[in-house]
Amino acid sequence: MEKWNALYAQSGGVTAVINASASGLIETARKHSDQIGNVFAARNGIIGVLTEDLIDTSLESEADIAALRYTPAGAFGSCRHKLGSIEKHRKQYERLVEVFSAHHIRYFFYNGGGDSQDTAHKVSQISKELGYPITCIGIPKTVDNDLPFTDNSPGFGSVAKYVAVSIREAGMDVASMAETSTKVFIMEVMGRHAGWIAAAGGLAAEKDGDSPHIILFPEIPLKVDAFLARVKACVLNYGHCSIVASEGLKNAEGQFVSDQGLVDAFGHKQLGGVAPIIAKIVKESLGYKYHWALADYLQRAARHIASKTDVEQAYAMGKAAVEFALAGKNAVMPIIVREKGNTYRWSVGEAPLEKVANVEVKMPRDYITDDGFGITDACRAYLSPLIQGEDYPTYKNGLPQYVKLKNTAVAKKLDATFEVA
Amino acid sequence: MEKWNALYAQSGGVTAVINASASGLIETARKHSDQIGNVFAARNGIIGVLTEDLIDTSLESEADIAALRYTPAGAFGSCRHKLGSIEKHRKQYERLVEVFSAHHIRYFFYNGGGDSQDTAHKVSQISKELGYPITCIGIPKTVDNDLPFTDNSPGFGSVAKYVAVSIREAGMDVASMAETSTKVFIMEVMGRHAGWIAAAGGLAAEKDGDSPHIILFPEIPLKVDAFLARVKACVLNYGHCSIVASEGLKNAEGQFVSDQGLVDAFGHKQLGGVAPIIAKIVKESLGYKYHWALADYLQRAARHIASKTDVEQAYAMGKAAVEFALAGKNAVMPIIVREKGNTYRWSVGEAPLEKVANVEVKMPRDYITDDGFGITDACRAYLSPLIQGEDYPTYKNGLPQYVKLKNTAVAKKLDATFEVA
Repeated sequence: MEKWNALYAQSGGVTAVINASASGLIETARKHSDQIGNVFAARNGIIGVLTEDLIDTSLESEADIAALRYTPAGAFGSCRHKLGSIEKHRKQYERLVEVFSAHHIRYFFYNGGGDSQDTAHKVSQISKELGYPITCIGIPKTVDNDLPFTDNSPGFGSVAKYVAVSIREAGMDVASMAETSTKVFIMEVMGRHAGWIAAAGGLAAEKDGDSPHIILFPEIPLKVDAFLARVKACVLNYGHCSIVASEGLKNAEGQFVSDQGLVDAFGHKQLGGVAPIIAKIVKESLGYKYHWALADYLQRAARHIASKTDVEQAYAMGKAAVEFALAGKNAVMPIIVREKGNTYRWSVGEAPLEKVANVEVKMPRDYITDDGFGITDACRAYLSPLIQGEDYPTYKNGLPQYVKLKNTAVAKKLDATFEVA
Repeated sequence: MEKWNALYAQSGGVTAVINASASGLIETARKHSDQIGNVFAARNGIIGVLTEDLIDTSLESEADIAALRYTPAGAFGSCRHKLGSIEKHRKQYERLVEVFSAHHIRYFFYNGGGDSQDTAHKVSQISKELGYPITCIGIPKTVDNDLPFTDNSPGFGSVAKYVAVSIREAGMDVASMAETSTKVFIMEVMGRHAGWIAAAGGLAAEKDGDSPHIILFPEIPLKVDAFLARVKACVLNYGHCSIVASEGLKNAEGQFVSDQGLVDAFGHKQLGGVAPIIAKIVKESLGYKYHWALADYLQRAARHIASKTDVEQAYAMGKAAVEFALAGKNAVMPIIVREKGNTYRWSVGEAPLEKVANVEVKMPRDYITDDGFGITDACRAYLSPLIQGEDYPTYKNGLPQYVKLKNTAVAKKLDATFEVA
């Protein structure tokens, strides 16, 4: 049986655990060296494929591939480039075939979210459309938790844990000083279109009065009066009010609150920042002293506080992708299936790339309380298993030891370069 | 020998480890129950003393007092109230004596930074000025690391570790995407007057090209041209540029950069936020896509990533305070003494409150590189031991289990209330 090489690439915003998927994939492929030759990685996602910028992962040590499991961000680089349709951009697909063919590649693994699975789906059509036999498997990843079919998306559990831990800690800080100082604290979190990450903050509140007291979801337009009334009630009842606000919060007219926003000293619009706008609304109406935080990349890179469940699932997705390919599957993505029953158990399932691509799963309305400011028990039951367990990296000199791979380039075999549009 | 009660209070901004000092103090006092009666805690610092709002810590279990070691923020509440001088505000001091006397208190422990040690110093004068025999011991605490005499301040090591870990992780995230997306990342950290916290970010960079590439200190006025040139050089050499910016950064005219800042849609000035202003300067001059984070309270509350060294030192300071009091010392503060030699070792020393009060220690100029954008080897040698070791809290349901004390109020014995000015 002839051995073919595999190509792996990372796509879209990176996470604390996407490299765990890479580790699972490469370690599993190495165990099947009778069937898979080298695993190459494309530098910066699909762009690296188009430009024939490949990395030879066989030159990385076993220890370094194992250490990927504990290393955040994208070890091979990522991109947000989407392939155009095969009808309109046939040249791109012919180029992919040239690169695959030149490097003896018949397995392609694409690790990303909804947009990236659209690209994976398009690559999977190459066999039929261009006659080159490529096996294409998607690997799920996104902090936004908005992929369909899978119970949850690898990457989300760790950002969820970060947000819940952070608002618990900061909320205690605010409570300590509230009598004479800051009474309102706002933590802005990611989630432009869906409130999953903001919802995870709600896990920190286990009993009445715990932080966060208010969650502002992208799914629920901000009603300023109701919001202010709630802030005031929290300060009266608990002495303070801690708020988790999604960057995707919209006003009653459906515009992003962050867009109504700030201008700098030159009158130019300032990008980003729901938290300072909410803070200002509170200050002007209620007069409370406030503080706010904006976690930005800190939240999705926080491998030091990753969810063990999330790490295990991310690794399992990479492993399953190789097993799927070797089992002759194509144009599918492994998914996480939640088993029925009171004890959380999960297994690996599969979904067709065709149906995964470009679908965004929003929070069900019954995961948000009727007043729109909190999460329901159903939401808590869904979210809680995803942040279970700690999986600490090793430390040296007080700092986590994350691996930096050699990322040695594979010698180019094609004469022509390719311009990515 | 008659037994007298002790009174402990927390003051100023809280930290991830101030409760470790409380734990050390209460556990040590309990071991000397032949000499010390109850340990009371004042609610919200000196305000709780003046208003006779005391907590009976003897009603807290051994397990809960032990758990304080792993719990961030201020378990008894804190304040920033400063006592006026004894000459001008004699009534306040007479009130303190009334409260001490009513509750049989002859030991007073005040846990805070420079301003708080001023209050501790003033309380220590009560014996001489008002004839009431009070033993007053300060306990050092501040994330700002600006207390004199002590080698470092409890609370600083943990925020230093948080900042170094966070910029390492976020820097890797930026590096992954820089080829086609965000090229400049700015993380704003605390430190209104001294750059110790910003400097700690520098520990994350262990070799050329590591994040952070630039540190902006309050001690070094921002030279915009030199800064932009450095950002550009980093993007050209490393593909991206990660920056740690102190909230206390000043411009060439000596004003806070955050004050030149943002106005909201109503034209009102927006408080806080050096990071978005720096981001804007970069965007307008160099055109790079940017992201920024503002850690705010997350950094000083982050017990989940506390420095083990910091926790041990904070605990030791609380323990030493009791031992000092029982040894007949007065008007002193235990300090951390760094032993000479290549291996980091520390011991407990002492400093007079009179000389500790109201002094702010800035970064030595030779801790900052000549160009003003980084830390020197001397600074690294000083900072590195302070972030050593991890000291994780216990987790339940994926979240750290922090203790919430009962905080049962002691029955008031005084008829008169007291209005805190």
